[in-house]
Amino acid sequence: MASHRQIRLGVSMIGLGYHLAAWRHPDAPAGGNMELQHFVRVTQAAERGLFDMAFLADGVGIRFHDEPPGALCHTSKNVQFEPLTLLSALAMVTERIGLVATASTTYNEPYHVARKFASLDHISDGRAGWNVVTSVTDMEARNFNRDKAPGYDARYDRAAEFVEVVRGLWESWEDDAFVRDKASGLNYDPGKLHVLDHHGPHFQVRGPLNVARTPQGAPVIVQAGASEQGRELAAATADVVYAAAQRLEDAQAYYASVKGRMARYGRAPEALKIMPGIMAVPGRTRQEAEDKYAVLQELVQPVVGLGALSNYLGDLSGFPLEGPVPEPTNRRMHSRAQIFLDIARRGGLSIRQLYLAVAGGNGHRLVIGTPVDIADAMEEWFLNGAADGFNILPPWLPGGLEDVVEMVVPELQRRGLYRTGYESRTLRGNLGIAWPEHRRAGVKRAAIAQALGSAAQ
Amino acid sequence: MASHRQIRLGVSMIGLGYHLAAWRHPDAPAGGNMELQHFVRVTQAAERGLFDMAFLADGVGIRFHDEPPGALCHTSKNVQFEPLTLLSALAMVTERIGLVATASTTYNEPYHVARKFASLDHISDGRAGWNVVTSVTDMEARNFNRDKAPGYDARYDRAAEFVEVVRGLWESWEDDAFVRDKASGLNYDPGKLHVLDHHGPHFQVRGPLNVARTPQGAPVIVQAGASEQGRELAAATADVVYAAAQRLEDAQAYYASVKGRMARYGRAPEALKIMPGIMAVPGRTRQEAEDKYAVLQELVQPVVGLGALSNYLGDLSGFPLEGPVPEPTNRRMHSRAQIFLDIARRGGLSIRQLYLAVAGGNGHRLVIGTPVDIADAMEEWFLNGAADGFNILPPWLPGGLEDVVEMVVPELQRRGLYRTGYESRTLRGNLGIAWPEHRRAGVKRAAIAQALGSAAQ
Ligand SMILES: Cc1cc2nc3c(=O)[nH]c(=O)nc-3n(C[C@H](O)[C@H](O)[C@H](O)COP(=O)(O)O)c2cc1C
Ligand SMILES: Cc1cc2nc3c(=O)[nH]c(=O)nc-3n(C[C@H](O)[C@H](O)[C@H](O)COP(=O)(O)O)c2cc1C
Repeated sequence: MASHRQIRLGVSMIGLGYHLAAWRHPDAPAGGNMELQHFVRVTQAAERGLFDMAFLADGVGIRFHDEPPGALCHTSKNVQFEPLTLLSALAMVTERIGLVATASTTYNEPYHVARKFASLDHISDGRAGWNVVTSVTDMEARNFNRDKAPGYDARYDRAAEFVEVVRGLWESWEDDAFVRDKASGLNYDPGKLHVLDHHGPHFQVRGPLNVARTPQGAPVIVQAGASEQGRELAAATADVVYAAAQRLEDAQAYYASVKGRMARYGRAPEALKIMPGIMAVPGRTRQEAEDKYAVLQELVQPVVGLGALSNYLGDLSGFPLEGPVPEPTNRRMHSRAQIFLDIARRGGLSIRQLYLAVAGGNGHRLVIGTPVDIADAMEEWFLNGAADGFNILPPWLPGGLEDVVEMVVPELQRRGLYRTGYESRTLRGNLGIAWPEHRRAGVKRAAIAQALGSAAQ
Repeated sequence: MASHRQIRLGVSMIGLGYHLAAWRHPDAPAGGNMELQHFVRVTQAAERGLFDMAFLADGVGIRFHDEPPGALCHTSKNVQFEPLTLLSALAMVTERIGLVATASTTYNEPYHVARKFASLDHISDGRAGWNVVTSVTDMEARNFNRDKAPGYDARYDRAAEFVEVVRGLWESWEDDAFVRDKASGLNYDPGKLHVLDHHGPHFQVRGPLNVARTPQGAPVIVQAGASEQGRELAAATADVVYAAAQRLEDAQAYYASVKGRMARYGRAPEALKIMPGIMAVPGRTRQEAEDKYAVLQELVQPVVGLGALSNYLGDLSGFPLEGPVPEPTNRRMHSRAQIFLDIARRGGLSIRQLYLAVAGGNGHRLVIGTPVDIADAMEEWFLNGAADGFNILPPWLPGGLEDVVEMVVPELQRRGLYRTGYESRTLRGNLGIAWPEHRRAGVKRAAIAQALGSAAQ
């Protein structure tokens, strides 16, 4: 195995793919977003490509505005598997790839989240990860007794305490707590059970968790918020960050900003892997790659394009499609809105041009070209302080991912930038992230020993 | 296939088995409660036995009191897999058996529960079931911002509305809503999407669910509450009930009581299958069966026996083990408490005798004998208005279940009381429960057509 720094890869296996028209691609299984075998094929392709992880985005509700009316029924952004159930099933047909599910801190309880990810970590033998999100849309809020999503500070305040409680619950049991001695009848050593007894502004959680400490010590924590609050949470607790940036300088600024905050939490910069999204469209020639992408672009209906803009910029259907992008009056609360506006302003784009520009990557970086072009693009960011790896956003699935595995991965390997075999059985091991020491191990035992006036232990 | 009424079987695959000392059994895998392969073996054994379903009990927290101190660390009732993640994994290594997970209505949100079970139903191709419970213990309450569990009425009031919302969300999409027409770009027919818009005292849930209608139309609903409120909820909404009774007359009374309430909800008695728990311990001879059971009984430590009583009757450790069972002063809120006291009073049992009497079945019926004895016991209840089937509680796993599959199932088949092959691919189909008609199909379309002043759909 190479001992120098290597590129990490993940894949976002959202439904039929990341492109707005993915489901209409001639080779896409149009109903694949609700077909188990579709996801089996996708995950196994990523594992053939030695990816660190397969990632499932999630919303606790439909998150695509039906604005203008008719937008929603012309997309496939309507139904999907629930991530934890799907990834548990996929754990059974994969061996090494990490399995990262999104779960919201705004509409969940930490005890449930701690249990489910701990359970997935046991089922997958150390391959579970949790993508921590705060659920920005009002559409999701309406499924949980609210009209609107809470504001940024409220959401991230709750998220920070939520993650703290979950991590505490994951330390309920020490690694060697379970002696299971049939002869004496002792199942676990009571000195190695830690009751959390958390009392905070949002949560009172006694614990302990009713799941043993997991094969990874703790599931990997992924974070995907770009705001100030999101960066701070990532610096404090995340092992991996998914980012969205178009240009090297923006990615570098983000990278420096998040890594720069880590010292404050006593963390080394290497402890966190920053993996911007990238939509990579490889072809044997540039022309072939352009042609591949054009197939999808031609399938974008105006009502769907406007719908995609409306999610961040509000409804623009009152403006001429060929005219400039107006300053939005009801811009939605989301860091992506600014990325969209920057793209429009930089290129002087019309509304139609803007929705075509973001139809694929939804604001993420788009690279169309030969495997060499794409490897160059990755290498540039990787070597220049903008990325530790990439979250691959295939325009359509499974073909768009299979192309990357077959064409781009070998080119990265030739350059010595990417593994030729998995290093570890666990996600944490493959990412090269340290084993999380149990922070309370021994503490209670020492206290007990002291209370008993004994010097032992 | 036999066309007459047949016995249904489920298995409760709780950890290492139902018996208090299961984990100490010489042949039990002592750490099996956190080993995936243990559950694979258990579920596959049940499927060999053509069981309708494998059932996972659950608590959102440890539910075994450490009373007297030391009770908990001498049992294996401490850690377990989270049911939905485990059953999703088990769906991949089984073909026909139903997969029933317990989820609490008191500490969950209906949108999450609706999604997860719908997702499991898709993953398993129509084999999902939800055991609706209200989480009776204060130990669980303390993991969710509360000191005590809410009272009966509050819990069941929320449960009734919770189930209503979940069922409504499962009807968000009609069966044929998704046209996925690549040519026209229409993904679904908007007339076949139903927004729930629920406004009730506990929940405001807009919907729609972001999961398509499931292979079973709706996952099977199982209920396991014995109180007045629990019976009413079962009569109104359940497809299956798990019951606990020791004697024929008690089981008959319960059976009549629940089925008698169904007419009020416009339901036929056959629409609900009542399956009491039974711990069946078969041997080639009665002596062999008795000896098998004695192995476990001898492994029950007094501190664990007292712990088991304490869960329902409060701490009795201040009373002599060989003395009578006192009238408990702090009896816990649970229908099982009365069953325990009845057993003690009927038999004039000492505290030690009581805990040994319930160490196996925890108040459920216990039958030790030859396969003929056990089939007789089942047949009697099945033919005399006490049961539509049974929830098998193996004293230890996997051996205790494998014994039933190998010895008792063939005897039931010989009598023509049990299937010799699965009738259906779905749990609903095997149980013989009707397809749930979509209650809102056509409604909205008709309303739209009317609003448009058109006679056409
Ligand atoms: C690459 C990426 C992936 C994301 N995936 C999800 C997701 O699956 N579910 C979700 O609710 N939010 C997701 N988010 C949104 C963030 O969690 C966050 O709520 C949103 O970006 C707005 O907050 P911010 O301004 O802090 O980024 C994602 C964001 C990024 C950058
Ligand atoms: C056979 C059976 C299985 C049960 N399984 C569970 C379970 O897995 N989790 C749970 O919280 N409660 C479970 N219960 C408890 C009931 O849901 C209920 O809360 C409890 O029996 C007290 O209420 P009741 O008096 O209505 O029965 C079960 C009850 C029975 C009879």
